[in-house]
Amino acid sequence: MPTGDIDTLIQLLSRLPGLGKRSARRMVLTLVKNKEATLLPLLSAMQAVANSVQVCAECGNVDDRNLCHVCTDERRNRETICVVEEAADLWAIERSSIYRGLYHVLGGTLSALDGIGPEDLHIEGLIHRATTQGVTEVILATNATVDGQMTAHYIMERLRDTNIKLSKIAHGVPVGGELDYLDEGTLSAAMKARQPVM
Amino acid sequence: MPTGDIDTLIQLLSRLPGLGKRSARRMVLTLVKNKEATLLPLLSAMQAVANSVQVCAECGNVDDRNLCHVCTDERRNRETICVVEEAADLWAIERSSIYRGLYHVLGGTLSALDGIGPEDLHIEGLIHRATTQGVTEVILATNATVDGQMTAHYIMERLRDTNIKLSKIAHGVPVGGELDYLDEGTLSAAMKARQPVM
Repeated sequence: MPTGDIDTLIQLLSRLPGLGKRSARRMVLTLVKNKEATLLPLLSAMQAVANSVQVCAECGNVDDRNLCHVCTDERRNRETICVVEEAADLWAIERSSIYRGLYHVLGGTLSALDGIGPEDLHIEGLIHRATTQGVTEVILATNATVDGQMTAHYIMERLRDTNIKLSKIAHGVPVGGELDYLDEGTLSAAMKARQPVM
Repeated sequence: MPTGDIDTLIQLLSRLPGLGKRSARRMVLTLVKNKEATLLPLLSAMQAVANSVQVCAECGNVDDRNLCHVCTDERRNRETICVVEEAADLWAIERSSIYRGLYHVLGGTLSALDGIGPEDLHIEGLIHRATTQGVTEVILATNATVDGQMTAHYIMERLRDTNIKLSKIAHGVPVGGELDYLDEGTLSAAMKARQPVM
């Protein structure tokens, strides 16, 4: 039975997303069995993150500097803002290398169920950035969930009376996906959004 | 895209068992989004473990003291040693509260495939403890895998010519398990080890 410090560490780890008691125990055991090679490097990396990590005051990205490396990158197109729920979504789009504009991280979605209203998200900042900084297009890239889509809709309403072009990322069949394994919602979205090919 | 310190932390975490790139990213994001409540306590717990954790010189348990709390517990029966593969197995048996003797952690199993021989495990220490400290029973509780059983067999051979009673934990149907979902190996082990009930 783990005791004292080890147990505290297991408790803390098991509260993180994706980890339970058992996986936290396995993690800790790997760490302590191989202290020099795993625990100490992890410790110093975590210390470095704790010292350096900041939330970008402009877009809400999580980075080791403020403003973040996207907002400060001169080569990026400053006329488009892509709106995402979380920094993880921003990172996911960055991995695809398809987008060269700016971002805005909302910090979640509107949710009647959880009592999350517009004032709990970084929506005012988005409206301010969009309307005062020469932005020509706002791309709504919230998740394809009910809450995500409702949030996108709310932002569309807020920006409706401006000249800013509003767009939503496409919903449809994932590349490599097989129709037989897809849910009806995705299929009907893909069908509705069908495009002429010749 | 995470950069610098954050990326280093994700890389290190994603090498731990049970974590991949995506889950490591989610973990790090949770940590940095809620620095005071999650990252800093985790950091100090990890620091405490790094400072205090030790492998028990007697039994190989991982604890914050040496000898470990099992070996130093005067109330435990010092005549039985339960042999397990890893400290996690020891913790698992301790959670069941069924066993009040001592343990011996081998640190793995014999494996021809991975080139792990008796000299790579803490087997000599076990033989020494078993034969010099008035031990009357050695319980083999290695995993019910080919390697685990082979290791148990090797230890049985080594202790055959002593007066020490050797036993193996029972293999059979897990409590709460349904026969229909069990593999043939488990069922035939359960059938062979059947016991008279009246």
